[in-house]
Amino acid sequence: MKGFFYPKSIVVIGVSDKPKNMGRMIVYNLIHKGFTGQVHAVGPHGGTVLGRPVRKNVKDIQFPLDMAVILTPAAIAVEMVRECGEAGIRRIVIESAGFSEFSDDRKGLEEELSAIAKEFGIRFIGPNCIGVFNTDNGLATSFVLTTSDFGKGDVSIVAQSGGMAMTYMESLEFNGVNFNKVTSIGNKLNVDESDLLDYLVNEDERTRIICMYLEGIKNGRRLMQIARQSKKPIIVHKSGVGRAGAATAASHTAAMSTDNRVVNAAFRQAGIIRVHMTSQMVDFVKIFELPPMKGRNLAIVSRSGGHAVIAADTAEHFGFEFPSFPPEELAKINEHVRGGVINLRNPLDLGDLFDLSVYESIARMVLSNENMHGMVLAHAYGKADREESRQFLRVVKELSIKYQKPVALCLMIDDQEASYLKQNIRFPFFNSPEEGAWALSASYQAHQYRQREQVTVSPVGTFDPLPARTIIENAAQERRNPSQAECFDILKLYDIPVPGYRQAGTAGEAIEAAEQIGFPVVLKIDVPSVLHKSDVGGVVLNLASPKAVSEAFTQMHDKIAGSLSADEPFVVLVMEHVKVTGQEVIFGIKQDQTFGPALLFGMGGILAELIKDISILIAPVGRSEVNEMIRRIKGYKVLTGVRGQKSVDIDSLADNLLKLSQLALDVPQIMEIDLNPVLSYEDGCLALDARFVL
Amino acid sequence: MKGFFYPKSIVVIGVSDKPKNMGRMIVYNLIHKGFTGQVHAVGPHGGTVLGRPVRKNVKDIQFPLDMAVILTPAAIAVEMVRECGEAGIRRIVIESAGFSEFSDDRKGLEEELSAIAKEFGIRFIGPNCIGVFNTDNGLATSFVLTTSDFGKGDVSIVAQSGGMAMTYMESLEFNGVNFNKVTSIGNKLNVDESDLLDYLVNEDERTRIICMYLEGIKNGRRLMQIARQSKKPIIVHKSGVGRAGAATAASHTAAMSTDNRVVNAAFRQAGIIRVHMTSQMVDFVKIFELPPMKGRNLAIVSRSGGHAVIAADTAEHFGFEFPSFPPEELAKINEHVRGGVINLRNPLDLGDLFDLSVYESIARMVLSNENMHGMVLAHAYGKADREESRQFLRVVKELSIKYQKPVALCLMIDDQEASYLKQNIRFPFFNSPEEGAWALSASYQAHQYRQREQVTVSPVGTFDPLPARTIIENAAQERRNPSQAECFDILKLYDIPVPGYRQAGTAGEAIEAAEQIGFPVVLKIDVPSVLHKSDVGGVVLNLASPKAVSEAFTQMHDKIAGSLSADEPFVVLVMEHVKVTGQEVIFGIKQDQTFGPALLFGMGGILAELIKDISILIAPVGRSEVNEMIRRIKGYKVLTGVRGQKSVDIDSLADNLLKLSQLALDVPQIMEIDLNPVLSYEDGCLALDARFVL
Repeated sequence: MKGFFYPKSIVVIGVSDKPKNMGRMIVYNLIHKGFTGQVHAVGPHGGTVLGRPVRKNVKDIQFPLDMAVILTPAAIAVEMVRECGEAGIRRIVIESAGFSEFSDDRKGLEEELSAIAKEFGIRFIGPNCIGVFNTDNGLATSFVLTTSDFGKGDVSIVAQSGGMAMTYMESLEFNGVNFNKVTSIGNKLNVDESDLLDYLVNEDERTRIICMYLEGIKNGRRLMQIARQSKKPIIVHKSGVGRAGAATAASHTAAMSTDNRVVNAAFRQAGIIRVHMTSQMVDFVKIFELPPMKGRNLAIVSRSGGHAVIAADTAEHFGFEFPSFPPEELAKINEHVRGGVINLRNPLDLGDLFDLSVYESIARMVLSNENMHGMVLAHAYGKADREESRQFLRVVKELSIKYQKPVALCLMIDDQEASYLKQNIRFPFFNSPEEGAWALSASYQAHQYRQREQVTVSPVGTFDPLPARTIIENAAQERRNPSQAECFDILKLYDIPVPGYRQAGTAGEAIEAAEQIGFPVVLKIDVPSVLHKSDVGGVVLNLASPKAVSEAFTQMHDKIAGSLSADEPFVVLVMEHVKVTGQEVIFGIKQDQTFGPALLFGMGGILAELIKDISILIAPVGRSEVNEMIRRIKGYKVLTGVRGQKSVDIDSLADNLLKLSQLALDVPQIMEIDLNPVLSYEDGCLALDARFVL
Repeated sequence: MKGFFYPKSIVVIGVSDKPKNMGRMIVYNLIHKGFTGQVHAVGPHGGTVLGRPVRKNVKDIQFPLDMAVILTPAAIAVEMVRECGEAGIRRIVIESAGFSEFSDDRKGLEEELSAIAKEFGIRFIGPNCIGVFNTDNGLATSFVLTTSDFGKGDVSIVAQSGGMAMTYMESLEFNGVNFNKVTSIGNKLNVDESDLLDYLVNEDERTRIICMYLEGIKNGRRLMQIARQSKKPIIVHKSGVGRAGAATAASHTAAMSTDNRVVNAAFRQAGIIRVHMTSQMVDFVKIFELPPMKGRNLAIVSRSGGHAVIAADTAEHFGFEFPSFPPEELAKINEHVRGGVINLRNPLDLGDLFDLSVYESIARMVLSNENMHGMVLAHAYGKADREESRQFLRVVKELSIKYQKPVALCLMIDDQEASYLKQNIRFPFFNSPEEGAWALSASYQAHQYRQREQVTVSPVGTFDPLPARTIIENAAQERRNPSQAECFDILKLYDIPVPGYRQAGTAGEAIEAAEQIGFPVVLKIDVPSVLHKSDVGGVVLNLASPKAVSEAFTQMHDKIAGSLSADEPFVVLVMEHVKVTGQEVIFGIKQDQTFGPALLFGMGGILAELIKDISILIAPVGRSEVNEMIRRIKGYKVLTGVRGQKSVDIDSLADNLLKLSQLALDVPQIMEIDLNPVLSYEDGCLALDARFVL
């Protein structure tokens, strides 16, 4: 990836001197951002642009070319990539739009692009993007005029939308935060977010904080793997969440949608911090410019009581605590307070205390205190105490660095003063105390993740995947989903407990099965095409005698057999009627197209219907993660026993979730597994029903 | 209240020429904001300040004085109020701090203040505030230097914190929104938020939008009553929510905390829009500067696809819909598109369409369409298309006014351009599409409230409150809570169904009671001091014979009677053992110190424990409100029947909630009522247990 950010020479393809030519704008931006390498131009009409010759063909350029930037109509872009390949260029930014995001019939063009890239060993960014920026060397391939001068910073941005890339660049700059590298990845046909994340996390020493705007995720598992190992904070704004948003994303960057709950689960597991608003992204970046919040103990100090109240509300919402300041320290400070004693509690309203040297003592007391992990400091000042305040802020910055604790500075100042601080003090500040407190919670969350026990994924048992695969392949060949008996067979292969069961095609077989299993039994239609078994009279419970079984079989046969197609034999499942009482839970697997198998766990019954009480993990999963997954559902209290009931066997739930996750990894052809209900009781659990979808 | 905002002459008390004197700052602000009335100064040291004489006593001023502003130490402020009273001043702003917010022993000073005010018929704002601003006449009594020049607008602010008043003033100004009046109300000992709201809603024609920052609410019922009738939007930022926030608010403005869920319920009922962040307040004010969003149909049009995706996500989250544009309109627009056809769906990504005259056609098509209620328009521009863009924005503004539909404009532009627009186009714009979409949801919510059916509170029955009051007064005199039999007696007086019950003091009485009620019965200890009846063995169910009743009575007596105090006779409640099946719900009443009786309804059992599935209304309540309250809980689905069950009798729930609300209004001495569970079944409901707290 480095080649995209540090080329020594660039050719821009699609340049002319027409007033609205966008290729010319790229050349302009490269020159005016002070790009340190050479810039060449190619366009069908030749001539000169911005004092440079426009060649008609890439091959006409006699210098070695490290990178090409293409902005032509889509079909021509494909030709140009071939020309570049022939000219030996191996890094290309394709900014042209009009590919699969525009209409499905443009997919052929994308396939051509991929084929040419493969033929020549080319890596390319795009199509449908505004390319790359690097403040290290003035690289700026946008076709939009960028007026501001960008400082050199340590925040790098990867954005699936050019517009959002610009929004982030400008919002960060406006907030006094400079960036290092920006990549607009568009349809990410070749280079995707994971390629770039890998580079930014593991290779690029200039990047310390990573922001991403994503509408779809191409290879979720790889993204997670890179993020898990990252010491640099990764903040992702993932959009395309709703129906309309996802549809718009599809026509914008050909993004494919993923279940939003799966995205949340994956990000949590990988330590990726998710934001939902641009302003939140900017606030979180600011906080990561500071030392990390290493614990829950927060001091709030404010010149206005109102700001202290608001900061306290927000901080408490995010789980922070407010220990008191040590009395002996307070005594020292009160010695310096002119005209009386102030109420030095935490949160601290400085009230009518206007002596900035006392503020300094307080900041020193807070940040040097081992029991305090960070601070929200709200300050307002005008012309009268401008110089003293600036000096105070300089001291706060020093103290923050010295004691390696974050200070979420919230300043109520005028625009000019804000500009001065951004240029001269260079310590991020927030527009409101609630934003500062919220951001601190992200810092603490990231710190906690980094301190977590390493998740170890160790096998919960040794299972031979082959028999299960064979069953699934048979069903797949017959273009049907597995029968319930087959589902139970597979669960048994993975040692997941199921009731006693046997299939039966005749009343006689049903009686024999019931006798082997032991009465009472349940009879269930077991034909894969019958989805809603109860609705068609396909489930009869509590059959206590051979006669009852025989009668039930005959009745069910009469009701259902006639409506089955010729190649579907009428088969029932004879199943143990389980009498043990317990709580109903749900186990599930859903193969996500980008993150792979997602493991679901939730409460059954009413809670499932009313509040979607479900937690999700991406497989493979460690035991500690599964334990946490079980604890995370709201119904956990019910499982561990409310109103004097005994707890169900939580370990057995964890064990069997681990086994199910193993099964999903071993047999990825199963797209969905639904064990609903799993009966969880005092010393075990039992899957009472199973449905697999291929 | 008008007197506070339009005084012809003001005296500032507490002025000296010392460098840090804050009274002098008030005089300075009045002069420099161009206050159109006279400004006089009083201070103990005399002399001159800013070229004006400082009198030693208010009586030394020979002119009529409409209003005084006092900023002296607290004890002196009290004296000064008397001096003002004697000098005939009837409007005073007391900015001095150091009253009950500082420590409880300052309450005496506040009582003195109130007494003097009463004696002279003075209304005063404060203490502990920064007073009033009015851009109509340059009134500005803050002791903080306010540097910016404030334009004249139509937004008025009432803030319990001076710091937050300043924050809102500056944030609005920065966003190009001007204010009209600002009041910092501090401890609101005399004038409170409702006094001001009443004035701003009903008298002040200059105010169109009202913002409030409140840490506590003084008279919630009055606030609700004014808000309910208001045609002007009222947006409230209520803080002091968490434990630490509430404690900080208490020491900041002596604010008392209220259950946050009650605040939410009251605001919803009164049509008050609640915000939780400063930035959200500013965004909502912007949207109320525009015509209202009158329906759910939203068009999203964006120059960047990314912004369209984000806007769609947010708008969908808030329940907006995105109807397609009419094909014939689209055809017209496509005629004007240079070089091809664009995908004119909704949300609309303008993609590589750069012709601003087409943008204009699209805006016209959207806003003139009767089926479309509003629009998010995201636009980015730089120097190249600045003039065209400004022209386009002028047209958008005209169209918004012409068709009376809101356009949440989201602009990605540089600072200078933002300043230009704020001064010249004067049409609010947002920093991000998600903020614009969120704000539109507030506009729609406010519109819906204004369109709602008038809530009529009509009596659900004619109940004589006297017998209930007598029972409660008896219990109060004995300094105990009512027994369960007394609770049931009161419920019966209000026609709320309870099972058959009788009290019994001996086994014989218990048997007699059981025979009258009919077997089987329940026996429950009914001594008010015994709170956890089951825990002490004080509940026995399903007693089917006289013998069983007698034995249960004796056992219970042996277990419990010994631990009762001498003046507590051992009494049990003999109650019908109810066998009908149904759903358990909870009815409740909680007397809130500011909002009065709050009516609670929720699911019983597991749902209550796990998810606090409760909805709240402030009494008195209308039937439509109660119906909505029942529908609002998550468990509503269960009540109306899941999995083939029949619905419970929702009308009966509503009836009895109305009766309970009537009881709470009639007998306000009952601080809490807890009917848990109420059994709700197919054709009625029945309160199985009742607990009243006085």
